[in-house]
Amino acid sequence: MTTDTITAISTPIGEGAIAIVRLSGPEAITITNELFTGKDLREIATHTINYGRIVDPDTRDIVDEVMVSVMRAPKTFTREDIVEINCHGGMVAVNKVLDIILSKGARLAEPGEFTKRAFLNGRIDLSQAEAVMDLIRAKTDKAMSVAVKQMDGRLSKLITELRQELLETVAHVEVNIDYPEYDDVEEMSHEMMRTNSREVHKRINELLEVANQGKILREGIATAIIGRPNVGKSSLMNTLVQENKAIVTDVPGTTRDIIEEYVNVRGVPLRLVDTAGIRETEDIVEKIGVERSRQVLQESDLILFVLNFNEELTEEDMKLFETVQGLDYIVIVNKTDLEQKVDLEKVKELAGDRPVITTSLVVEEGVDKLEKAIASTFFEGEIDTGDMTYVSNIRHIQLLKQAKQALEDAMEGIELGMPLDIVQIDVTRTWEILGEIVGDTASDSLIDQLFSQFCLGK
Amino acid sequence: MTTDTITAISTPIGEGAIAIVRLSGPEAITITNELFTGKDLREIATHTINYGRIVDPDTRDIVDEVMVSVMRAPKTFTREDIVEINCHGGMVAVNKVLDIILSKGARLAEPGEFTKRAFLNGRIDLSQAEAVMDLIRAKTDKAMSVAVKQMDGRLSKLITELRQELLETVAHVEVNIDYPEYDDVEEMSHEMMRTNSREVHKRINELLEVANQGKILREGIATAIIGRPNVGKSSLMNTLVQENKAIVTDVPGTTRDIIEEYVNVRGVPLRLVDTAGIRETEDIVEKIGVERSRQVLQESDLILFVLNFNEELTEEDMKLFETVQGLDYIVIVNKTDLEQKVDLEKVKELAGDRPVITTSLVVEEGVDKLEKAIASTFFEGEIDTGDMTYVSNIRHIQLLKQAKQALEDAMEGIELGMPLDIVQIDVTRTWEILGEIVGDTASDSLIDQLFSQFCLGK
Repeated sequence: MTTDTITAISTPIGEGAIAIVRLSGPEAITITNELFTGKDLREIATHTINYGRIVDPDTRDIVDEVMVSVMRAPKTFTREDIVEINCHGGMVAVNKVLDIILSKGARLAEPGEFTKRAFLNGRIDLSQAEAVMDLIRAKTDKAMSVAVKQMDGRLSKLITELRQELLETVAHVEVNIDYPEYDDVEEMSHEMMRTNSREVHKRINELLEVANQGKILREGIATAIIGRPNVGKSSLMNTLVQENKAIVTDVPGTTRDIIEEYVNVRGVPLRLVDTAGIRETEDIVEKIGVERSRQVLQESDLILFVLNFNEELTEEDMKLFETVQGLDYIVIVNKTDLEQKVDLEKVKELAGDRPVITTSLVVEEGVDKLEKAIASTFFEGEIDTGDMTYVSNIRHIQLLKQAKQALEDAMEGIELGMPLDIVQIDVTRTWEILGEIVGDTASDSLIDQLFSQFCLGK
Repeated sequence: MTTDTITAISTPIGEGAIAIVRLSGPEAITITNELFTGKDLREIATHTINYGRIVDPDTRDIVDEVMVSVMRAPKTFTREDIVEINCHGGMVAVNKVLDIILSKGARLAEPGEFTKRAFLNGRIDLSQAEAVMDLIRAKTDKAMSVAVKQMDGRLSKLITELRQELLETVAHVEVNIDYPEYDDVEEMSHEMMRTNSREVHKRINELLEVANQGKILREGIATAIIGRPNVGKSSLMNTLVQENKAIVTDVPGTTRDIIEEYVNVRGVPLRLVDTAGIRETEDIVEKIGVERSRQVLQESDLILFVLNFNEELTEEDMKLFETVQGLDYIVIVNKTDLEQKVDLEKVKELAGDRPVITTSLVVEEGVDKLEKAIASTFFEGEIDTGDMTYVSNIRHIQLLKQAKQALEDAMEGIELGMPLDIVQIDVTRTWEILGEIVGDTASDSLIDQLFSQFCLGK
């Protein structure tokens, strides 16, 4: 396979101490060498770092003082020759270096193209490549941990095992069908297929059972704070933000439009979507009515519903209770530092099995209980990312669900006593669907689409 | 000198393909080795890149898959052992790596501390260190070019030459004073001091003459757009922004308050300070009066004053002319696609020696002339960054001015026939002042203050 040489800036945009221009491909070293003054990069050993200057070949002007890392194929991320030019940082110099490299015959890499080459050249499979992106986007330690394990190949290994088991089953059955020397072959094959299908089915189920937790770890819990004016919604938000230091603010690309705040509550990432919007929810029910506001709130994974300890329940409160019915919510009765006027028994009755937490945000009382309630709404007990293989990617979850269905079709066929060569079609289909997770049986367009979601320079 | 080991994240904050944690100091390699699985970093050759994983030493969890660069003293940026850990990008993993390193005994580096060590350990002088920061902040190719040359030691070399000349003069005079064997010693020494002082004075003057240009290249031209409502101020801004692709938007740190837009007009960086503010200047004169608004506009280096080709001059226009009197401005008579109603001769008379450009921004006419006028307001002809040593740093400019003054004191003493040991004091003072530029005679507090302006991880 002939490939061209790709290049991109691999560090985030902005003023920083170091900025990296990365090249990968057969010409990576020779192109860099043309603009580098220092040692001859074509002669030096692999995996070395070399001091020198990048010089504009046309004007002979020095563009930057750099450290050039040379890594020769095949022991590299892409399994091609890779050069990384560590510049002094600052966008002008780095862009200039990139421009010169492009003028010397390298092509600007598409988003994710380095990782795509790592995949196409067999260094990693598709689920590992996806984990690289998950790692970059991780908002909490737990999300990071899930991604690192997937990147390290845990999910790949598991999926590969399941596929192997299905493949062996099919192969075994084929052989038995072709050489039916014994009378009980039919029955034995049936039995084997039943046992193995059940085993694989069980393990897919286990993966799916914790998948929702994985998804939450990965994407964060979309959280809305609602309540009447003056019950302490802003205080609640500030408390959550201040108490939990690991706040990540997303400012994607160059647009400054969408800003999300992540708050890390005991390892659970709350995604406070559109802070401004949350502040306006006080009027949400009044303005758009119960039904419509339910729809809005349904996009949230969690609703923090704030009441006032110091006031009786109002008509509005009752409307809000109606609005959140059936959704995941936690009732926070705030202002316990003031006199009790609310009917707490009534509140608990209205909340049903939903947690009711009393707090005084002013004197920072009950915050601990609240955080515990938030964490346990989504995770029973401690979140264990230790040995668990979490499936967190929606694509993977959907494929697992499809695989489960295909396998159930096969199992039904077995129970109905259908011919094995028919049942086998469903088993083979399961094997194929699972293959899409690791990229073994994924289509080119799917692969293109997946990598296009990566950031530039990865 | 015993030093500790410092560490910081050296890439900009944000989602990117690669993030770097850097360590410098005697323990850099041993600390990294404790959390690295792969080769034993203590055993490997210098300037090599090593694949492996960062593992939390407490939980044994994998934190990230990394490439670790090891560079042993003294051939490094800081002249200490340096380790750079290239992580997969994404803030959580990188912060986790940093946390672990801190827990193993490294100290979080202060802003600029790596570069400060490079200076303290004699790898670069102060003017070179300052150029590193200028390079990172450069907004245009020209500004980059000025910074790179200074980083490369051009200014250092020049200053060192001047200081050497002064030192030799002083030494020569001292010797002659101590051994006055001949009658004409006094006269010869006087003559030598006169000649050398004049030469150094001339060269300092040359540096100062282009210093303003250097400062502009470095900091950008603070530009305000003024004019009555509906003359085309917004169109002008949009045209400048769209025609000149090299726009850099500053979003310092995590605060999103101050945003400046840089527009690169023929290599000259226009800094459109506070876009919102510019839009509001239409009312500035009316609101705060001519005198007060003059003060506001005086903070700008350049005023783009827009008039309407399709309207007669109004009272307001006349007031604006009064406001910009004595400031650097360009008159833009916009809307030439419409019928002429403005008295162009009158406009030219009011503008005096300031350029008057007619444009039609709607049909994109005259934009070229305008850009030429902007460039030539600050630079005669082409900007030549080729062989010129530009002094761009305000600190350097002020020191050069002080040195020039001290030298003039000396020259005056010589002309007045004052004793050489008195004149010598001023010459020595000049030598000391110039020494502050390269950091030879700079105080600790000055050095601390300079480096504290650097970005973290540099």
